[in-house]
Amino acid sequence: MTTQVGIAERIRTANAEFMARVGKAAPSLVRVRRAQEVIPVLTGRTVLHAGPPITAERLCGPMRGAILGASVLEGWAKTAEESARLLDRGQITLRCAHDWNAVGPMAGIISGSMPVFEVRDQTSKTTAYSTINEGIGAVLRFGAYDPMVIDRLRWIAEILAPALDRALQHLEGLALLPLMNRALSMGDEMHQRNIAATSLLFRALAPALAKQSAPPNALARIMQFLSENDQFFLNVAMAACKAVMDGARGIPLCTAVTAMSRNGVEFGIRVSGLGETWYVAPSPVPDGLYFPGYAAADANPDMGDSAIVETAGLGAFAMAAAPAVAGFVGLASAREAIATTQAMSALTLGPSPHFKIPALDFAGTPTGIDIRRVVEVETTPIINTGIAHRRAGVGQIGAGIVRAPLDVFQQALTAFVERYASPAASPGGRS
Amino acid sequence: MTTQVGIAERIRTANAEFMARVGKAAPSLVRVRRAQEVIPVLTGRTVLHAGPPITAERLCGPMRGAILGASVLEGWAKTAEESARLLDRGQITLRCAHDWNAVGPMAGIISGSMPVFEVRDQTSKTTAYSTINEGIGAVLRFGAYDPMVIDRLRWIAEILAPALDRALQHLEGLALLPLMNRALSMGDEMHQRNIAATSLLFRALAPALAKQSAPPNALARIMQFLSENDQFFLNVAMAACKAVMDGARGIPLCTAVTAMSRNGVEFGIRVSGLGETWYVAPSPVPDGLYFPGYAAADANPDMGDSAIVETAGLGAFAMAAAPAVAGFVGLASAREAIATTQAMSALTLGPSPHFKIPALDFAGTPTGIDIRRVVEVETTPIINTGIAHRRAGVGQIGAGIVRAPLDVFQQALTAFVERYASPAASPGGRS
Repeated sequence: MTTQVGIAERIRTANAEFMARVGKAAPSLVRVRRAQEVIPVLTGRTVLHAGPPITAERLCGPMRGAILGASVLEGWAKTAEESARLLDRGQITLRCAHDWNAVGPMAGIISGSMPVFEVRDQTSKTTAYSTINEGIGAVLRFGAYDPMVIDRLRWIAEILAPALDRALQHLEGLALLPLMNRALSMGDEMHQRNIAATSLLFRALAPALAKQSAPPNALARIMQFLSENDQFFLNVAMAACKAVMDGARGIPLCTAVTAMSRNGVEFGIRVSGLGETWYVAPSPVPDGLYFPGYAAADANPDMGDSAIVETAGLGAFAMAAAPAVAGFVGLASAREAIATTQAMSALTLGPSPHFKIPALDFAGTPTGIDIRRVVEVETTPIINTGIAHRRAGVGQIGAGIVRAPLDVFQQALTAFVERYASPAASPGGRS
Repeated sequence: MTTQVGIAERIRTANAEFMARVGKAAPSLVRVRRAQEVIPVLTGRTVLHAGPPITAERLCGPMRGAILGASVLEGWAKTAEESARLLDRGQITLRCAHDWNAVGPMAGIISGSMPVFEVRDQTSKTTAYSTINEGIGAVLRFGAYDPMVIDRLRWIAEILAPALDRALQHLEGLALLPLMNRALSMGDEMHQRNIAATSLLFRALAPALAKQSAPPNALARIMQFLSENDQFFLNVAMAACKAVMDGARGIPLCTAVTAMSRNGVEFGIRVSGLGETWYVAPSPVPDGLYFPGYAAADANPDMGDSAIVETAGLGAFAMAAAPAVAGFVGLASAREAIATTQAMSALTLGPSPHFKIPALDFAGTPTGIDIRRVVEVETTPIINTGIAHRRAGVGQIGAGIVRAPLDVFQQALTAFVERYASPAASPGGRS
């Protein structure tokens, strides 16, 4: 007979297995491929999007904008207007990126011809994909879709991606966790600040890029693009975190969160012991600093798969490593940055075996968000985030922090109890 | 009549002028040149060396080793043994690098054919030079001089230096203080840790390097060299700090230190109000961590011009920005790193107007070492330093911290009093 004590013990074992799997993870950046080559669902007029599943009529402005841009890029329509008609008639299929081993920041739109990074975890054999970061300003992921955005995406697909792929082949892949831990010691939290990780990635790739006999001007443009984009590493970090978290999913009786994500309308989480179900609630509007001319009234509710980095112990969870981010997301001091990391410790299973914070004497970042603790202390995960304008076509208008809604953790805990602790539940779980 | 009160007030004004000059400094990395083109003393068999002036018979092992290497490099002799005979017969002339606007880490040997970085401060019109960092392991600056060391120096002179110079020309120079402040927010203190500054420099130069139509393999080797050498920026930081400090020298009645340096035998300082005089005492042996197989008994006394970075508010003075350095130099915790920076505040005129520490809520690093305060509190500047084997030809055996000897500050203060506060002193000083 299953007693409460018995379940508590089995949850402890399951959660220890979660941390053990996280500890053994060793994701590498192995190659760059056209999305449709490696993500089988991307046939016809199909796009992947960030966050839990959503239908066309419920899309927020910036995600809609990004889909219109992808439609033009793919040649499904000549203009954004034509694309909007396709979308409204249900002729563009929307799929949740997380369901297809993929993640994307903000709108997170991935269409077939876009190149994606492939990250492979050698231990769990999990593979994760993410798009290549476009830079800042008017970019597809924030909902911009003007011709400059489309041209840049074409250059990324035709010139940058093959060069990056050749460089990765030459290096035989690039181990990501050591690089990410090093970046953490250099002030990145790898959500709103990726300058160190980007610089380290650039240093690792540049010699191999230089070996390719590209014309000097093409090579120089590639280097310029990489060297001007401080957030370039974000997408790589997301794929690495997705691979690590997916390697720890599906553990019966495990109460740790394996994904937090937002589609700009809803915020959702997945839990290791609860399979692929999303627990969702309305996505909150971030609290942050706005670029001149914008205010909270212009902001779209929080959006993007990028909260996968917090799920894995980075971003706001690693805020103590990145005091320079504190001001950028609206905190008042370095002490608040440390307090943020410490507050997240109350919600998690333990310190990261990979990510260490020098300012905290190399303590690991809080890792393994436990839905029981979140509900018990009524404190939810903090996420460092970019803020998109609510209208399609505008782009980023600020950055800040957002709190995950408590409701999703309560829903998940209720489902957990129903599955594992109700008299009808089978002892082994059904994940 | 000059009263004590009058002098205190005039010292305050002089020291305010010091900080104002530091604040206005804007050094740029402008070009790379053969040393003999820009440092006129480097004719015949002459080398510059680190630290206060020294004669051949008093040289320590590693500095002697570096001079033998330079002699072979310049073709003054075919072998180290022949070079040793030249040196012992007084046929190699030694000059203090600081006297010729130059600085070099550790042995700091600069001979005519070596390329040097040129840093120019646009405000004070001061120019400073430093060698190009060779990497770690067996390198000339630590006293190694085997054929591999000489070959690397040749490649640096023939291939790397012209490429770096063309890249700098293309960029029309590179402003250094913004880059250095950014690196400080990325965990560098720019003495024992330069990975962030090196990465940022690399990102700035790489596109311009790629534009040159060098053969792919040559370009790849350049990129590989830059990307493997985490200390590459140290020499640039030293030249930048030298330019800033030299821009503030020669201020009558100023009690701030403008140089701290060591030749491996003596530790010396210069003071703004005391002209070009070195105040010297025996150089201490660093307290630190040794590579496996080595111990304090193998260590040479502290050596190098690199303490110019502490003089300008970096290195150990910026330890709070670089908790990851703390362990490397033998401190126990991040708290000790913060304590080190705070302790240095007691010795200095004020916070750096350029270098800010995120973990201390962007407080400026302690800057302008005041000889009066050092003598008064009997606490001397801390310097982060590399440790060379005392024998020529071995190289680096560890890293640690060293305390400047109190004696040099006492000597300087005595000289200051004699010059400015004795009844015979003229009110205006004689600097």
